[in-house]
Amino acid sequence: MTEAIRKNFASDNIAPACPAVMEALERINHGSAAAYGEDDGTAQLRALAGDVFERDVWVFPVATGTAANSLALSTATDPFGAVICDQSAHIANDEGGAPEFFMHGAKLLPIPSADGRMVPSDLDRALRANIGHGVHTSPAQTLSLTQSTEWGTVYTLDHLRALTDRAREAGLATHLDGARLGNAVAALGCRPADVSWRAGFDMISFGGTKNGAMAAEAVMIFREDLAKNFLRRVKRSGHLWSKQRYLSAQLHALLTDDLWLRNAGHANTMAQRLAHGLQRHPAASLPFDVQGNEVFVVLPERSVADLEAQGFGFYRWSTPPGIDGVLIRLVTCWATETADVDDFLAAL
Amino acid sequence: MTEAIRKNFASDNIAPACPAVMEALERINHGSAAAYGEDDGTAQLRALAGDVFERDVWVFPVATGTAANSLALSTATDPFGAVICDQSAHIANDEGGAPEFFMHGAKLLPIPSADGRMVPSDLDRALRANIGHGVHTSPAQTLSLTQSTEWGTVYTLDHLRALTDRAREAGLATHLDGARLGNAVAALGCRPADVSWRAGFDMISFGGTKNGAMAAEAVMIFREDLAKNFLRRVKRSGHLWSKQRYLSAQLHALLTDDLWLRNAGHANTMAQRLAHGLQRHPAASLPFDVQGNEVFVVLPERSVADLEAQGFGFYRWSTPPGIDGVLIRLVTCWATETADVDDFLAAL
Amino acid sequence: MTEAIRKNFASDNIAPACPAVMEALERINHGSAAAYGEDDGTAQLRALAGDVFERDVWVFPVATGTAANSLALSTATDPFGAVICDQSAHIANDEGGAPEFFMHGAKLLPIPSADGRMVPSDLDRALRANIGHGVHTSPAQTLSLTQSTEWGTVYTLDHLRALTDRAREAGLATHLDGARLGNAVAALGCRPADVSWRAGFDMISFGGTKNGAMAAEAVMIFREDLAKNFLRRVKRSGHLWSKQRYLSAQLHALLTDDLWLRNAGHANTMAQRLAHGLQRHPAASLPFDVQGNEVFVVLPERSVADLEAQGFGFYRWSTPPGIDGVLIRLVTCWATETADVDDFLAAL
Amino acid sequence: MTEAIRKNFASDNIAPACPAVMEALERINHGSAAAYGEDDGTAQLRALAGDVFERDVWVFPVATGTAANSLALSTATDPFGAVICDQSAHIANDEGGAPEFFMHGAKLLPIPSADGRMVPSDLDRALRANIGHGVHTSPAQTLSLTQSTEWGTVYTLDHLRALTDRAREAGLATHLDGARLGNAVAALGCRPADVSWRAGFDMISFGGTKNGAMAAEAVMIFREDLAKNFLRRVKRSGHLWSKQRYLSAQLHALLTDDLWLRNAGHANTMAQRLAHGLQRHPAASLPFDVQGNEVFVVLPERSVADLEAQGFGFYRWSTPPGIDGVLIRLVTCWATETADVDDFLAAL
Repeated sequence: MTEAIRKNFASDNIAPACPAVMEALERINHGSAAAYGEDDGTAQLRALAGDVFERDVWVFPVATGTAANSLALSTATDPFGAVICDQSAHIANDEGGAPEFFMHGAKLLPIPSADGRMVPSDLDRALRANIGHGVHTSPAQTLSLTQSTEWGTVYTLDHLRALTDRAREAGLATHLDGARLGNAVAALGCRPADVSWRAGFDMISFGGTKNGAMAAEAVMIFREDLAKNFLRRVKRSGHLWSKQRYLSAQLHALLTDDLWLRNAGHANTMAQRLAHGLQRHPAASLPFDVQGNEVFVVLPERSVADLEAQGFGFYRWSTPPGIDGVLIRLVTCWATETADVDDFLAAL
Repeated sequence: MTEAIRKNFASDNIAPACPAVMEALERINHGSAAAYGEDDGTAQLRALAGDVFERDVWVFPVATGTAANSLALSTATDPFGAVICDQSAHIANDEGGAPEFFMHGAKLLPIPSADGRMVPSDLDRALRANIGHGVHTSPAQTLSLTQSTEWGTVYTLDHLRALTDRAREAGLATHLDGARLGNAVAALGCRPADVSWRAGFDMISFGGTKNGAMAAEAVMIFREDLAKNFLRRVKRSGHLWSKQRYLSAQLHALLTDDLWLRNAGHANTMAQRLAHGLQRHPAASLPFDVQGNEVFVVLPERSVADLEAQGFGFYRWSTPPGIDGVLIRLVTCWATETADVDDFLAAL
Repeated sequence: MTEAIRKNFASDNIAPACPAVMEALERINHGSAAAYGEDDGTAQLRALAGDVFERDVWVFPVATGTAANSLALSTATDPFGAVICDQSAHIANDEGGAPEFFMHGAKLLPIPSADGRMVPSDLDRALRANIGHGVHTSPAQTLSLTQSTEWGTVYTLDHLRALTDRAREAGLATHLDGARLGNAVAALGCRPADVSWRAGFDMISFGGTKNGAMAAEAVMIFREDLAKNFLRRVKRSGHLWSKQRYLSAQLHALLTDDLWLRNAGHANTMAQRLAHGLQRHPAASLPFDVQGNEVFVVLPERSVADLEAQGFGFYRWSTPPGIDGVLIRLVTCWATETADVDDFLAAL
Repeated sequence: MTEAIRKNFASDNIAPACPAVMEALERINHGSAAAYGEDDGTAQLRALAGDVFERDVWVFPVATGTAANSLALSTATDPFGAVICDQSAHIANDEGGAPEFFMHGAKLLPIPSADGRMVPSDLDRALRANIGHGVHTSPAQTLSLTQSTEWGTVYTLDHLRALTDRAREAGLATHLDGARLGNAVAALGCRPADVSWRAGFDMISFGGTKNGAMAAEAVMIFREDLAKNFLRRVKRSGHLWSKQRYLSAQLHALLTDDLWLRNAGHANTMAQRLAHGLQRHPAASLPFDVQGNEVFVVLPERSVADLEAQGFGFYRWSTPPGIDGVLIRLVTCWATETADVDDFLAAL
């Protein structure tokens, strides 16, 4: 790794693709292959995903997380419907209105939470409020959660089930934004099935790009009715690659021999190292549990400016009222090295 | 090349990526890079495109031609508007309704033609008919042409200008679907600028995937007002890559040292070789001029079945009424070798 | 009737509301009534429609035919789907893109016909062509026919059933645009049930405005799954009246004692009188059967200009190539009087 | 008035049309009239609106407030954009997702307020927050306010200007939901121009239905660019009446001799009478200023149940946390009589 990446904690998407992904692309790059997902590599990906998730699963590779999330929500939500999500959700804040575009104007109904993890009683309240006003209100049809969350926290499996149980009782479909699912599975030490369909989810956005791919995510669907017309939606949004082998190969490489979990586990370890170092800093305070690969820390403006001046890369976050200092986000990834973390801590 | 590709004439998208593209991906795959198109590689692509097209141009890389076309049309056409195109157009027949999705329900108004090249007087008639019915009709706001066309023919520069002049007088924006633009430029021996903005186009879909890329196209825009909010549309449709360097690198490789024109020129040469061989075949007839990399040929059912039995790959096309035999499409590409063509002809 | 209306054959929507409709509005205009269709008058309309159509039917009153058609199509067609219709259909030519708006970009697939009546073998062909191209094509999900047609012709019941049978076998829902349904029922002398659900239709747009109402149409649905969320679609498009009693009262008045059939029958008689007169005119030719309340006639330019100069109102239609003269449309309605027709014929 | 209406305070839309509106409909109901707004009555409405608002204004009559609001927002907001509104806004809570439908998925960004009146510094904060996140955020393009508000309060003219000034500086278009505009103008004693374009609004939804019409609202636009394609949007959403004379006549009747202000002023007086009576009740508390025709009051559950048992009509509102009792809404209208109010107070 060059100097450039060593100081860059801005996001996990500033990293390159990991070696195994590049090798898989090279390996697949010969001869002809059927287009639009009819290639052998895509079939192999499907089979491997079935092994990893311990059941049949419909797998739809796409290049971006925004596409994965928006397509998934659109197959479960009518244009006149609504999606309940956490106020911190990527779908609500960071996708330029893509969910509303793919859902043809269906609404997002965000619920506030302390740390990105929705509280079951708050979901109860939102579900009740949604029913009371008849045709004048857009009916909630889908629940979308994020694991690990945008604040770097991780739901327990019981917590997830408490939420999906309520959704199911109210007739909602359930979606998990797993842009950083590997980090959550690595943190929980559970099986991929535990955090997805066994936790009550009908479909997940499986993230690869932030975890070592060049550009590869997959919508994984566990309900046939939701999968039925999905490929039409992928095509109609321009997300069906003619040379799909290059998408599938990236995902196949990540799922092979748990590479996705090893990559994510490494990133988590680096985040822990960073968090522990920061916790020892007298002027630093960490508002959230560090459980995945994101570290949020409040530092004095002077320290933040100093780090920026030294060339470290990270984002200043919107600092909540009442907090003295600057909230910044530091993200680790498969390519972060121990020395990178230590250099940052030393610089601070 | 392995056996598999040697017999596959189904499409130019069954081919692998060409070596220079793979090398460019390897070369860019190190260190951190700013996300969402803020990386140096994307800036370099923009500069190189400016050189190739001999003027400032806004360049928006995306992964698929469907995305490129649909995004381009949506920036020029109101949801209540319409797009005039040829009846054979990819946007009308092969994109699963993507243009209508991105344009939020605007209509396509296809005009029949003999060989994929719209006749100016037919455009005149369509423009007149479109005006006569006031608010009850969706107003034409964009003209979209395809070069080279879906039938493998190539417009002359004068022909293009005759059409774009009419469009401009009627207040329409102009778009060129250039999924196979390289083949047209190579066939015409003109400069890229001649067939794009000098021919009256406001924006083009520049095709890379069919011409040696893994998955890379670009919307190139020559009018500031159309480019202004374009990135928002890219983002909102899930087509803005976080690791955009990998899209830009592919396009940069193709534009460097005219690789795109060399790849396309080679494919054209192979198509010519195929066409000449077929023309000598007593039972074959070629309904269209072979000018790009597509060869349409009518053959007896027995011959077609025999080729299929030998493992050759190609599509049977919807055979027009009154034609005796089967219309098939044969597509060559950067990876087609002389021997591949000769083997096909020999097998026939 | 004043002079103004006596010379106006431009459309059936230039007429005033008929006396019974106005009386119904006066009658209902007192006291409070529950809003949004919860009023007694709407319940009575539902019951009366059930009597008239001889079965339970879901009735959704709206103010315009464009709303009725577009809402109906949207409940049966996915945003990625398509609707097969006749090339002359109002939904394809006269609604400013409303169907595409309400269906969120689904496509219309128009089939040419000689006189507005789709030929079953042409439907077969269109259905076959629609299947062949997989996810690249928008799948046909709904068949929409018009009765009486835009050319003033009327389908026989057998003809309708031949078409709806094919649609049903191919898995399509079926819709009848009945903006002039009364004219068809009056012409056929059949029961309303015969031309609607007994003829294989899942839903109809029942026209009132052209037949004596101020502004009142109804979507009538015979399938519970299509009716289920329909009110949400009505609300979401701004077509749910708070004071719905005023919509329902108009429709109730028309359905009472067959007023809608008497109004339509009168208009048909006037059209017949007009047609017979024209047929005796040496320079006139009538390209279509006159079966409803629309008369299309080709006249010499001089005659047409002369009629215009005398203050008669009608539309010049787009004259098909090869026809010498000017094609005009004359429409009769409940308010047309014998003398009006005779004056026109005399003036000619 | 019958018994039924005398006890019904549920809404101003449970009332019948006022006599002048019915007379106007009768008066216009003869002879032919040009369709789709080309009639003389619509021209007269436009002229009268110009007089009432003291400047040229584009007037588009539609049948519902939801249509008026959604159409207006859609002409000023791109599909990828956003609208800032108050959290209590009708567009956010009571229109079944219609704004998102008409705007093709653009987002609503609601701002909390104490009583339906947005605080300028809160708007400042929302505008700043909206800019900070680039293409990942839907850009605010329109500000929509409501006058009188959903809580029955009325903005001062200075307050409105403080908000529209900020919007304009930030490049936003401005829209006023005037479903109860008459009540606000009557309460303020200002001129219609003062509360609309002179207060900085580019367009208003002018409400007629709640104020004595059968079903008639108008979008009034003061900016040519926003009006330019508006009729296409009206048509495309099924809101262009063929017999538009019946919409225009209702609005013309209301605007003639200030009938709309007299109707609204009467409703306001009744609301004041109700409020004063309630204020004298020991167990009642009124959380909001009563300035228009809506009275919100918190009463003990026993009292509310008792009123319901006596046949009085009103809505129980979602009672805010921390409030003891039940929040109900009482709405007066042009048809409410002094005795109706006194009976209610006596019953309580």
